[in-house]
Amino acid sequence: MAACKSFLLLLFTIFMALKPANSLPAVFPTPTHFQSLFKQAKNPKPNIPYSSHYFPQVLDHFTFQPKSSKIFYQKYLINRHYWHQGAPLFVYTGNEGDIEWFAANTGFLLDIAPKFQALVVFVEHRFYGESMPFGNESYKSAETLGYLNSQQALADFAVLITSLKQNLSSEASPVMVFGGSYGGMLAAWFRLKYPHIAMGALASSAPILQFDDIVPWSSFYDAVSQDFKDASLNCFEVIKGSWEELEALSAQREGLAELSRTFRTCKDLHSIYSARDWLWTAFVSTAMVNYPTDANFMMPLPAYPVQQMCKIIDGFPAGATRLSRAFAAASLYYNYSQARKCFDIEHAADVHGLHLWDWQVCTEMVMPMTCSNQSMFPSSGFDYQEFAEQCMKTHGVRPRPHWITTEFGGKRIEQVLKRFGSNIVFSNGMQDPWSRGGVLKNISASIIALVTEKGAHHVDFRSATKDDPAWLKELRRREVEIIQRWINEYYADYR
Amino acid sequence: MAACKSFLLLLFTIFMALKPANSLPAVFPTPTHFQSLFKQAKNPKPNIPYSSHYFPQVLDHFTFQPKSSKIFYQKYLINRHYWHQGAPLFVYTGNEGDIEWFAANTGFLLDIAPKFQALVVFVEHRFYGESMPFGNESYKSAETLGYLNSQQALADFAVLITSLKQNLSSEASPVMVFGGSYGGMLAAWFRLKYPHIAMGALASSAPILQFDDIVPWSSFYDAVSQDFKDASLNCFEVIKGSWEELEALSAQREGLAELSRTFRTCKDLHSIYSARDWLWTAFVSTAMVNYPTDANFMMPLPAYPVQQMCKIIDGFPAGATRLSRAFAAASLYYNYSQARKCFDIEHAADVHGLHLWDWQVCTEMVMPMTCSNQSMFPSSGFDYQEFAEQCMKTHGVRPRPHWITTEFGGKRIEQVLKRFGSNIVFSNGMQDPWSRGGVLKNISASIIALVTEKGAHHVDFRSATKDDPAWLKELRRREVEIIQRWINEYYADYR
Repeated sequence: MAACKSFLLLLFTIFMALKPANSLPAVFPTPTHFQSLFKQAKNPKPNIPYSSHYFPQVLDHFTFQPKSSKIFYQKYLINRHYWHQGAPLFVYTGNEGDIEWFAANTGFLLDIAPKFQALVVFVEHRFYGESMPFGNESYKSAETLGYLNSQQALADFAVLITSLKQNLSSEASPVMVFGGSYGGMLAAWFRLKYPHIAMGALASSAPILQFDDIVPWSSFYDAVSQDFKDASLNCFEVIKGSWEELEALSAQREGLAELSRTFRTCKDLHSIYSARDWLWTAFVSTAMVNYPTDANFMMPLPAYPVQQMCKIIDGFPAGATRLSRAFAAASLYYNYSQARKCFDIEHAADVHGLHLWDWQVCTEMVMPMTCSNQSMFPSSGFDYQEFAEQCMKTHGVRPRPHWITTEFGGKRIEQVLKRFGSNIVFSNGMQDPWSRGGVLKNISASIIALVTEKGAHHVDFRSATKDDPAWLKELRRREVEIIQRWINEYYADYR
Repeated sequence: MAACKSFLLLLFTIFMALKPANSLPAVFPTPTHFQSLFKQAKNPKPNIPYSSHYFPQVLDHFTFQPKSSKIFYQKYLINRHYWHQGAPLFVYTGNEGDIEWFAANTGFLLDIAPKFQALVVFVEHRFYGESMPFGNESYKSAETLGYLNSQQALADFAVLITSLKQNLSSEASPVMVFGGSYGGMLAAWFRLKYPHIAMGALASSAPILQFDDIVPWSSFYDAVSQDFKDASLNCFEVIKGSWEELEALSAQREGLAELSRTFRTCKDLHSIYSARDWLWTAFVSTAMVNYPTDANFMMPLPAYPVQQMCKIIDGFPAGATRLSRAFAAASLYYNYSQARKCFDIEHAADVHGLHLWDWQVCTEMVMPMTCSNQSMFPSSGFDYQEFAEQCMKTHGVRPRPHWITTEFGGKRIEQVLKRFGSNIVFSNGMQDPWSRGGVLKNISASIIALVTEKGAHHVDFRSATKDDPAWLKELRRREVEIIQRWINEYYADYR
């Protein structure tokens, strides 16, 4: 088995349709875990203390054709409970999903708003959630999806924030932007491209260096593997060995039937690769959200879920297959509540808009990834040609693999930003595999890296709980301290 | 007479078509002298020491529709006479005209190239010169012209420079960008938006603050007027009084015939307003190029041409009309060589592409201007509504008057850039009316304003001559010194 592949269920389905059922799926090694966020976002709206608003936004900021000026309605949420005129605006630069979901999972902003008397705003990213430029036709083709990309999103934020401040008669208020994951990339880039609008950015788990050849292509999966190895060497080795057992089943006459039983599938499996992807998703996602407390980000999970998975694997009686152990561990991710009696592995719900992040991956968000021999995944390379062809087939678009580094930089970032720019915090938790594509060292006095060994995917952005460990409290304290310093400077400069 | 109006001949012609001949032309007070550069650029190609190249450029960097990836050929010029691998690249960010013309009028880059062993590159701006994305169809309508704007141009530069450095195996070379006038705006914005590509910018006569309400709307024409007043108070008053005399002619039965005789027109005039615009263009353009030496930028002119114009006005015998004096002064601009026997005031050559800069003015380059009572021009306001309607009629496009400040900033620039960004020189000569929209004060240790009282429109960029005054030599010396410092820092950081 040689594929360090995508977890996009939709794409996977397409691959299945294109290939004989028993061949390997196409190598499509850009893991798009961001995507799973979107799926979650389609759950019932969380109950959050924000009012909803809709801003008339320009379709295309960067051309002036007659249709460029078409208006669509961009959703944003506001909490003005703690705010008074002239006080700061805290703006979350929305990423790939319904904005409510990010608001619900980014309690940090409201937690600290009283201290700053801040207005808290969450802005939805174009094409996601309700912010669909062409309504239900938005996802139709490259003609409509063509307007979905990061630069248009940043310009949306710029126009919306500028207008909002005018409407609030608060043009002098400092604006601090916050974002996690892809939203963190947007927050950092927003400060870099629009310093006149945002006086600072807190970018949590933002892998802005995951492009081109800036970080080793194998670093993401090596990091996932390291999490499991750190929890237990045996656990790591069981998972690493499970793929071979899985593949061996494909050669057996009753292999798929046996696999269906082992994996307690609701319906018989048609391919071993769906089981493989199901495992893969569980291990990678759990590494990302290896939080120190119970949490329900992508799925409900206990504290330190990687350690819990490894306990399950290590606790099996001798003689159990590696595959059955891997399955049991993965079940923790899909079924922590133990409510499920069977798993619908091949027929994920047809979630509307699931392909949106995939579109972004096929245009600008090209993050090449491979699996090295040192990882717990089957080793594999990245074939750009194959990737590009798949994008053309699926979306009718050719990726621009070097565009992000041309537009936003990233190569030799220490040298570039040492003497340029200011007021960005890059926060990363080393449990999170995305951290390997993040900024992990201070660049200047005000372009700061905050790194926690035990942190996971934007853990700092989650609401504070009574169970938070000391290192997490300290991380948030430092973030508040830095934001306070920048705001003080801002007001001092403004006078 | 109440119009502080545009000098765009094409637009003027249109106004004539729209209005009764004896009414005032529409108020359209964005003077677009940049435009005249383009006209000049259509003269025979200058003989310059550069080789021509054509880069396959992407049509639309900011959308991913099927047609966005269309390739067009962007022209650029290279001189590698002084260069060796690893040495700096000096890149001129081309503005509104044929790139040869900017290369011919920006001798500064080649003058200083030997000292830095620099590769000198002049990149043509999309849609100008030969860099027409749709060939001869490029100017057809908003459908094609829609791709003409500053952000696409900056992205063009980013992609081209990145590729050029790769092809030269010189990715470690520092890139310094240079630009004058609109090209200077592009150079400054390029350093702000693409610091990972350009390590510094020298922006000469770049009115990046001429937008929205950042500088007083009357400042441009007040500055033109100040130049003439400084030369001679009588001169200023004669010009100021001439408009009244001109308008009075429109009420006289033989007024146009008399005006045609006074202005030595080749054909009888149909409107007094063409004569007015002809005068206006001469006074404004001469203020811009009030250089300390003979020069041939927009027109061949003697040293300090404003002073020469005023000498003509002041030297007239008593009793001569103010209008005839104004005409004689303006003739210096159009006919310094005295080769012309008559003036073709109403029928300017139909220069292909004349409306390109006008398109930019009607989309993003909205620079509101008015004429105050203190100016030597008829006082007038700026009616945005009328302006927008005119743009819709002429180009089928609605301006986005606040877009430039949203995208690039400008408001409270000192506060924003005090703690953000580095390595930009803003050079301005106070004779140049565009200086009033420039950065005239140091913002930080490396965002530096160089201001000369006697300087005119990017005078520092002209080739050095033996007649250059001491202040001009000193200005260039400081620029070289600053560039040298930045390059030294760059190499020190790179190691």
